[in-house]
Amino acid sequence: MEFIMRPIGEIHSPFTDKKQTPIQPTRSQAVGQVVVYPEFVEGLQDVEGFSHIILLYAFHQSEGYALRVKPFLDDQLRGLFATHHPCRPNPIGLSTVRLLARRDNVLEIEGVDVLDGTPLLDIKPYVPDFDVRIDTLTGWYGARSKA
Amino acid sequence: MEFIMRPIGEIHSPFTDKKQTPIQPTRSQAVGQVVVYPEFVEGLQDVEGFSHIILLYAFHQSEGYALRVKPFLDDQLRGLFATHHPCRPNPIGLSTVRLLARRDNVLEIEGVDVLDGTPLLDIKPYVPDFDVRIDTLTGWYGARSKA
Repeated sequence: MEFIMRPIGEIHSPFTDKKQTPIQPTRSQAVGQVVVYPEFVEGLQDVEGFSHIILLYAFHQSEGYALRVKPFLDDQLRGLFATHHPCRPNPIGLSTVRLLARRDNVLEIEGVDVLDGTPLLDIKPYVPDFDVRIDTLTGWYGARSKA
Repeated sequence: MEFIMRPIGEIHSPFTDKKQTPIQPTRSQAVGQVVVYPEFVEGLQDVEGFSHIILLYAFHQSEGYALRVKPFLDDQLRGLFATHHPCRPNPIGLSTVRLLARRDNVLEIEGVDVLDGTPLLDIKPYVPDFDVRIDTLTGWYGARSKA
């Protein structure tokens, strides 16, 4: 079984080098743009009512993967699925960003943490009723050696 | 440009009919299992330290899409990307669930909201530092006519 995904747009950011790219969006104040291809623009209606959106995208510069990786924030090997490492069997990235403005097919966003030119796969609205969990445990992340 | 995604496992749930499936995981107490294929089991190390995980999966029973849809929780047409509707250009679903236990390649989960047999594409740890946003606006969802 396989699923073929095709970009619906591109994410633009100040980051052109993997090494400069922030680790996660809450650590980034960087402003960027989501440019949705014109044929999908009708699907953006009502998006402007949301302060935050979830971007799903392809880690297009990742190649291959290992099932145990050393996270940026730790110095021990961890299981890949306990990390947000970009090299994954299905290289799908997920970032929640602040939506600053929409102009037609362009979304101005804050908190971008992806490489410039990243292929966009999907946009979902961020709804705390669905997306926020309290009373959480965060395993190695909570106990990590590097802050 | 296209990206080929292949399942890394399957999600099992009590839901065998699209019409019975809950709308979103915070509305579901249902227990299910994530069965990761044996070749990926090493990547599950350290996952058991997290109380919540994010599942990315394929909406395998969705066919085609419309750019304006009527959400389950509303009675007006909304832009597809302002909704979590399952029929999307790239039919990737996202659910945050509670991780109850791990036994080898099987994760026992609570709050499952997908059809039984849903193909799993990725697992990411839920980390409030990355995934929680406060001070949010939720557009049509906040102002919806059906609660």
